[in-house]
Amino acid sequence: MDEQKISPAEAQALADAAAQAMWQRDTNAHARGMELVAVSPGEATVRMRVAPDMVNGHHICHGGMLFTLADTAFAYACNSYNLNTVASACHIDFLAPAREGELLEARAVERSASGRTGVYDVTVSVVDGGTVALFRGKSYRIRGEVTASFTDAA
Amino acid sequence: MDEQKISPAEAQALADAAAQAMWQRDTNAHARGMELVAVSPGEATVRMRVAPDMVNGHHICHGGMLFTLADTAFAYACNSYNLNTVASACHIDFLAPAREGELLEARAVERSASGRTGVYDVTVSVVDGGTVALFRGKSYRIRGEVTASFTDAA
Amino acid sequence: MDEQKISPAEAQALADAAAQAMWQRDTNAHARGMELVAVSPGEATVRMRVAPDMVNGHHICHGGMLFTLADTAFAYACNSYNLNTVASACHIDFLAPAREGELLEARAVERSASGRTGVYDVTVSVVDGGTVALFRGKSYRIRGEVTASFTDAA
Amino acid sequence: MDEQKISPAEAQALADAAAQAMWQRDTNAHARGMELVAVSPGEATVRMRVAPDMVNGHHICHGGMLFTLADTAFAYACNSYNLNTVASACHIDFLAPAREGELLEARAVERSASGRTGVYDVTVSVVDGGTVALFRGKSYRIRGEVTASFTDAA
Repeated sequence: MDEQKISPAEAQALADAAAQAMWQRDTNAHARGMELVAVSPGEATVRMRVAPDMVNGHHICHGGMLFTLADTAFAYACNSYNLNTVASACHIDFLAPAREGELLEARAVERSASGRTGVYDVTVSVVDGGTVALFRGKSYRIRGEVTASFTDAA
Repeated sequence: MDEQKISPAEAQALADAAAQAMWQRDTNAHARGMELVAVSPGEATVRMRVAPDMVNGHHICHGGMLFTLADTAFAYACNSYNLNTVASACHIDFLAPAREGELLEARAVERSASGRTGVYDVTVSVVDGGTVALFRGKSYRIRGEVTASFTDAA
Repeated sequence: MDEQKISPAEAQALADAAAQAMWQRDTNAHARGMELVAVSPGEATVRMRVAPDMVNGHHICHGGMLFTLADTAFAYACNSYNLNTVASACHIDFLAPAREGELLEARAVERSASGRTGVYDVTVSVVDGGTVALFRGKSYRIRGEVTASFTDAA
Repeated sequence: MDEQKISPAEAQALADAAAQAMWQRDTNAHARGMELVAVSPGEATVRMRVAPDMVNGHHICHGGMLFTLADTAFAYACNSYNLNTVASACHIDFLAPAREGELLEARAVERSASGRTGVYDVTVSVVDGGTVALFRGKSYRIRGEVTASFTDAA
C-alpha cells in the first residue's frame, strides 16, 4: 500500500504501533476475551475461546461471534499501515460448527490493496483442528492515522 | 415453505412455538441484551441497544455486533416453520456507524425458500433513525424440528 | 441521491437521458439481445431471452449470463442520476435453473445510497414464472456525468 | 473430497475426463472464445480475450463477462472429482478494469470441501498484468457423475 518507501522494519514498527493504539481501546475484543497473536503489514492473527455466553442451546458458537472474531482480525490487518480504515462489506461462509470451550484462531491476509480499497481473506479455524469459517472483507480507507486518531480521542 | 397445508393461525402458532423454544436457550441473545420483538412465518424482528462493551475507541458499534443482531433476526425468521435451519453463508454491507447507547432494530424477511435452502434479507436500523447495515443470509434446513430438538436437549 | 433539488419530472428526464447515453454504446447488452424495459431514478428493468450460445450441455443458462443480465439492470439503476457510477462488488444467489428459450427479466431497485456508495437489489425471474436468482450489488460513484462522458468519448 | 481412495494419477485422470465431457458441450465457453488451460483435482485455469462485443462505450470489459470467466473456472474446478456440482452462490469484487483486447486468466482453487458443499476462490488477472477481480463461489453437489450425465444426454 503506502509502505513502498519505508523499510520492512519500519513497516513492522508502524503495524505494531497501530495495533497497540487500537488494542488499548478495543472494548469489544476485551469483552470477548480475544488475544492479539500477531500483526504485520497487511496481516493479523487473533484468538478467542468460545465462552458459555456465545453459544446457543446446542452449545454451538453463534455465527455472529465467529464473524466478530474474523472481523477483528480483518480490522487489525487493514489498519496495519497506520491509515484509518473501516469495513465496507463482509461475506462469511460457515463450514463447520465451533463448540463451547474450543479455542479459535482467525488469520487475516491481504488479497488486494489499491487506492482506498482493499480485500482481505480471513480463515477461522479451531486451533489444532479444522476450518470453521471463511470470511472475505472489503476495506475502505478514511481520513487520518490510526495512532493519531486514538491519541486525539484520549 | 412447508406451511401450505396449515392455516395462517396454525402457521403463526408454529412460529411462536419455535421462537419460544429457541429463545429460552439463546444464551448469546440474552448476553447481548436482545429483545425479540416479533416473529411470524418467514419473518422476525429483534432489537438490541449498543452497549459500552460493544464499541471501539471511537464509541462506534463493532461490525461484528451489528452482524450478530442481524444474524439473530435471520435465525428466528428461517426457523419460524419449526424445521431446524442453519446459516450457510451471510453477506453484510455496512452503510453508516451505530453509536453507543443507540437502540437498533433488525428486521428479517424471507426473499426465497425452495427445497432445503432459503434467502433472507435483514435491514438493521437505528429505531427512529437511518439504516446502518443491509444483511443477506442463506439458510439450509437440517434434520428435525426446532421444538423437538430443544425438548430433547433439555 | 443528488436529485433532492429537482422535480420528479426532471429526475425522470435525467434518468432517461443517462440510460439513452449508456444504451447506444452498450455493445455487450446488444450482443446478448437485451431489451431495456424501463428506467427511473434508482430503478431499472432489463430483459433477455436465453439464447442457444448461453447454455451448457443440459440446456441450462450459464450462471455468468444470469449475472450479466442482473449486472446490466444494476448499472442502469445506479447510473440513473446521471453521475458516473461503477460496480465495486456483487453477490448472487442462484435459486433455480433458467432454460434455453426462456425470457428473463431483471428488476433492480435501490436499497441504499449515501455519499459515493449505494446498494442495489436485483431480482431475476422468468417472465410469467418463478425467481431464478437474487443479486445484490454495491456501487461506487466516480467522476463525471454519464451523458457528458459518453459525449466526450464519441 | 471423494478422491481419498484413489491415487493422484487416477484423480488427475478423473479430472481430465470430467473436464473433457464438460468442455465438448460448453456452448457458452466456446461462444466467448475461452481456452481451458489446465484442470486438476479441485483446481482449474481458464483464459479469455476481451472481445469487442464484451465491452461498454469506454472499451472496458463488462463485469458480467469477468464474472462469466471466473464462474467457468469455478465450474471446472468443482466438477473435477467427476461428481455433478453446481454453483449455489457467488461473490465478486471488482478491483481494476480490463480493456478490450486484453487476455484474461481465471485461476480457481478449492478452499474447502465437506459433505455436499465446497468453497472455491478464483483470481482473475490480465496475463502478465495485474489482478482485475476476486471471486468466491459456493458449490453444491447434486446427483450423478459428470461423465455419465453427459453421456446420457448425448
